Amino acid sequence: MTTEKIALTPATHTTPPAKFSHGVKKGNILQVAGQVGFLPAEEGKAPTPAGPTLREQTLQTFANVKAILEEGGATWDDVMMMRVYLTDVDHFAEMNEIYNAYFEEQGLKAPASARTTVYVGLPKGLLIEIDALAVLS
Amino acid sequence: MTTEKIALTPATHTTPPAKFSHGVKKGNILQVAGQVGFLPAEEGKAPTPAGPTLREQTLQTFANVKAILEEGGATWDDVMMMRVYLTDVDHFAEMNEIYNAYFEEQGLKAPASARTTVYVGLPKGLLIEIDALAVLS
Amino acid sequence: MTTEKIALTPATHTTPPAKFSHGVKKGNILQVAGQVGFLPAEEGKAPTPAGPTLREQTLQTFANVKAILEEGGATWDDVMMMRVYLTDVDHFAEMNEIYNAYFEEQGLKAPASARTTVYVGLPKGLLIEIDALAVLS
Repeated sequence: MTTEKIALTPATHTTPPAKFSHGVKKGNILQVAGQVGFLPAEEGKAPTPAGPTLREQTLQTFANVKAILEEGGATWDDVMMMRVYLTDVDHFAEMNEIYNAYFEEQGLKAPASARTTVYVGLPKGLLIEIDALAVLS
Repeated sequence: MTTEKIALTPATHTTPPAKFSHGVKKGNILQVAGQVGFLPAEEGKAPTPAGPTLREQTLQTFANVKAILEEGGATWDDVMMMRVYLTDVDHFAEMNEIYNAYFEEQGLKAPASARTTVYVGLPKGLLIEIDALAVLS
Repeated sequence: MTTEKIALTPATHTTPPAKFSHGVKKGNILQVAGQVGFLPAEEGKAPTPAGPTLREQTLQTFANVKAILEEGGATWDDVMMMRVYLTDVDHFAEMNEIYNAYFEEQGLKAPASARTTVYVGLPKGLLIEIDALAVLS
């Protein structure tokens, strides 16, 4: 396995708002930057979140994380840690339902990732942000 | 060292509120999910935090993190990073006192872990959450 | 590469407010603790942030992270993930400008790190906190 650091940039992703990478991989470590529920990029259009529901934003966020994992040759099974940032404690139960259903559908073969969920401020219109650390086999 | 991903689930821990693992280990990387001050699980009883003081919740949270480390064959000495989430800036000084006394008692042989402490929202009744990343020797 | 865990403690850094290390390194993993914009330590003087502007605090925070990386034989090119904690969503655009200009000046040779930015509470007077995970070659 090469130890060169490479950027993981799915073609459908909107350009990051600053000089950071959506994902990076070095050796067997893959880090996914904080992803939000932005729909696939459209030229000349500002990044737009899926919505307006928590469900739509959460599923789009999962899709955005997954695209970066796949760009790096990883799958959900390689994910060790997910950090889930919500803006509202009242979204916890609904997010967990969406979370469980999504990962049920993904058919994980390895144990589920660890996770931390905390409640923070996010830019206007965003209800959820997720980042992930993966270790490849 | 095997590179299979394994879940770390201490017998005394309450069931996570969603499909995530309290801890996972793969190769030499061990990740502990966000732990709170829940007392050991009792069948038929909802997860209940130690309390009501910050001290009681913090010490129970440390115990919960430690149980996961030990389940994975690690100790506090292997921890590289702890993230401490508090709900109130006014708890910082007291948490540091508890933190220092606890790790003094643990008799660390290696340098202390790095740490980040930030102030966020947590579910009602919880004053502290801690997660940890460890690298095994 | 040794697998011993070592503490990374730049001489100019203020003493941490609790028993944690500013940085630790074990094998090829280097973790930088949450850094804020404290000016270099002066004996007998409490830690004092650069300021009062976001620019001054951010640049001092970068300098403090960088000193720890260098203490561990790493550079910005080895950083996989930066977590940026701001206290005010209105600081996002300005922080990104400072961020971009800073990393332009640093002349990175590898792809930029991944990043997550969230809005949290920090102790009075602090506008930004940053921690970093690096993987050495």
